[in-house]
Amino acid sequence: MTDPANIIRISANQMKSEFFRILRKHGLTDNKAEKCAGIFMTNSLEGVYSHGVNRFHRFVSNIIDGLIKPAAEPTLINSSGALEQWNGNLGPGPLNALFATDRAMELGHEYGIGLVALADTNHWMRGGTYGWHAADKGFVFIGWTNTEANMPAWGAKDARLGNNPLVFAIPYGDKAIVLDFAMSLYSYGRMEAYKLGMKKLPFPGGYNIKGELTTDPGVILETRRTLPIGYWKGAGLSLVLDVLAAILTGGLSTHEITRRKAEYGLSQIFIAIILKSLRNYPGIEETISRIITDYSKSESADGKARIRYPGENILKIRSENERNGIPVNIGVWNKITAL
Amino acid sequence: MTDPANIIRISANQMKSEFFRILRKHGLTDNKAEKCAGIFMTNSLEGVYSHGVNRFHRFVSNIIDGLIKPAAEPTLINSSGALEQWNGNLGPGPLNALFATDRAMELGHEYGIGLVALADTNHWMRGGTYGWHAADKGFVFIGWTNTEANMPAWGAKDARLGNNPLVFAIPYGDKAIVLDFAMSLYSYGRMEAYKLGMKKLPFPGGYNIKGELTTDPGVILETRRTLPIGYWKGAGLSLVLDVLAAILTGGLSTHEITRRKAEYGLSQIFIAIILKSLRNYPGIEETISRIITDYSKSESADGKARIRYPGENILKIRSENERNGIPVNIGVWNKITAL
Repeated sequence: MTDPANIIRISANQMKSEFFRILRKHGLTDNKAEKCAGIFMTNSLEGVYSHGVNRFHRFVSNIIDGLIKPAAEPTLINSSGALEQWNGNLGPGPLNALFATDRAMELGHEYGIGLVALADTNHWMRGGTYGWHAADKGFVFIGWTNTEANMPAWGAKDARLGNNPLVFAIPYGDKAIVLDFAMSLYSYGRMEAYKLGMKKLPFPGGYNIKGELTTDPGVILETRRTLPIGYWKGAGLSLVLDVLAAILTGGLSTHEITRRKAEYGLSQIFIAIILKSLRNYPGIEETISRIITDYSKSESADGKARIRYPGENILKIRSENERNGIPVNIGVWNKITAL
Repeated sequence: MTDPANIIRISANQMKSEFFRILRKHGLTDNKAEKCAGIFMTNSLEGVYSHGVNRFHRFVSNIIDGLIKPAAEPTLINSSGALEQWNGNLGPGPLNALFATDRAMELGHEYGIGLVALADTNHWMRGGTYGWHAADKGFVFIGWTNTEANMPAWGAKDARLGNNPLVFAIPYGDKAIVLDFAMSLYSYGRMEAYKLGMKKLPFPGGYNIKGELTTDPGVILETRRTLPIGYWKGAGLSLVLDVLAAILTGGLSTHEITRRKAEYGLSQIFIAIILKSLRNYPGIEETISRIITDYSKSESADGKARIRYPGENILKIRSENERNGIPVNIGVWNKITAL
C-alpha cells in the first residue's frame, strides 16, 4: 500500500456490499454474511487492513478449501455457571468470536463476570473487534487466541510458540480504551511491509543467522527467529496464554495446530465484566477521565508527539476513511471483486 | 548479596520464627503473624529475596509508620455474583492478597470463575505467591496490582505509569506454571544490583539523558526513564491494568497513589478459575504435559541451556535453600533481628 498510484478508495458501503455478495455466494446465510461482511469492512475502515480487506480473499479461499465451514454454529459443550465451554465446529472465526463475546456478556450480565472458552474455531481476524463490541455495550473485555507456532521460546532458535494476540477493552464514555497486541514485537506482515519499503525496523525485531539481534526485516524473515516482547517475559506470556487456551477450551494448543497443513481449529478465550453492577459505577467514567488526563500530561520525548492511549487513534482513522473512502491496493480489490 | 563473605545461611524455620516474633510484637495476631511470616519466608526460600527477607524490615517500618494497619480486615463492599468488591482497609498487603485469592477461589468454586477486586490494600510483595497458592488448590490464577508511577508512557520522558506486575498461574501436576512479571523490563532493584556489581544490563533497559536506549543501569537510575517490555505494548498494558484495577475496585489509580508520600492504598485484581468443573478436566494434566514436552524440545540458541517454562526453576531454588539454608546478607539479617 506504499505506492499511492496503486491505491483506490472504496466507500465503506460499497466494500461491505461486495463482501456480502461474495460471502452469500460461498454459503453464508443472509444474517451471517451481513455480520461477517460488517466485521471485515469495519476492520478496514478502522485501519486494520491486514485483518480486513487484505485478508478477505484468503478467508474466502479457506471456505472453498473446506477449512472454514460456512454453515457451522457453535455448540455448548459444558456449562459451569459463569464459565462455559463451547465448540466452534470450525465455523467462520469472526462469527464464532462475536457469538462467544455476546455469550460472555450474557454470562457477565448474570454473574458479574463471564468466561466463554471456545474450541475448534478459526482465525478471529482482529481481536480488537470483540473488545470494541463489548466495550460499546458497557463491558470490560479480556480475550486471547492461540495461533500456529511463529516465535521461538526464550533462548531457543526454532519457533514453537504462537504470537497469541491478547486484547483488553474498557468502555470510556462513547469511546473505548482498546489494547490488541501480539506476543512478538513485529508481525510477519509488518516485517514484510518494512522489507518491501526497503526500511529498517525501528527496534530490533529478531535475530540474524549468527544469533545477534537485528533491525533488518529481510534477515529475520529468513531466520524466522522473531523477538518476543520483553524478551523472556513475552515468551513466557505466549506459553501461558496457549496453555490456558488449550486447557480451558479442551481444544488444540499451538503445537497441535502447527502440525496441521494450515492454521485452523484454534482455541480462544472471551471474558466479559459488566461495569454497571459495580458499586462505583456512576463514577467510573470520571475515574478513567482523570487517569487519561494525567497520562496525557506526559512530557513528550521528542517535544512534539502527543501521548495517546491505546485505541485513541482508531477514531481518527475511522473518520478519515469514512470521509475519503477506505484505501485498497488495486490488485487486492480486483482479486476480491473477481470472487 | 554478591559478596559471599557477607552472606549467612538461615534455615527456613529459623527465618519464619524470627518473622513471627517480630510481627507479633508489631500488632499482628498469632494467626496473621503466622501467615504473614510464612509468606515472607517462602518468598525468600524460593529465591525472591527482594520481596522476602530483603523487604521485611521496610514492611515492619510501614507498620510502625501507620501505613499498614496490622489489625485491619478486608470488608465486603459489593457483591455481584461471581464478582465481589472488597476494601482492604490498608491491612497487611500479603494477608489481604491471600484473603482475596481464597475468596476468588470460593467464587470460582461456586461459579466456575470468580473475581475479587480489592481496593485500599498494600504491597502484596511477590505476586507469584498467590498464583502458587491457587494453583496448589487446582485453580488457574490471573491477578495484578497497580503501583506508584515508575515508568514513562511510550514516547514520554516522565514516569506516569506503574510497572503493575501481572501474574498467571496454572496447576501442573504437583507443580505449577507461574508467570509473574512487571511491565518494565528491569525493576529498579534489579538495575541497582547490576550497578553495584559494575555490570551492564543484558539488554537496553531505559534511556540516557539524550533519549538514547542504554544498557548502563546507573544512567537509567538517574534519568528514571525505564523501558516498558515490548516498548509501546508494555506501556499500553500498564495503562490498561491500572485503569482496570482502579475501576473494578473503586480504589486508587497509579496517579493518585503517586501523589501520596509513600506507596500505599493499592488496587488489586484476583481471578480464579476452577479446573475440575471443566468437561476435559481428566485430560488437563496430559494436555499441559504435551505442550511442555514440545516446548522443551526447543533447539537451544547457545546449544547448552535447557529451555525452561515459567516457574520451573523455583522448585530447584527451593530445594537448594531447604538443604543449605536461605542466603541472607548479614547486615540485612542483623537489622531484622534487632526489630
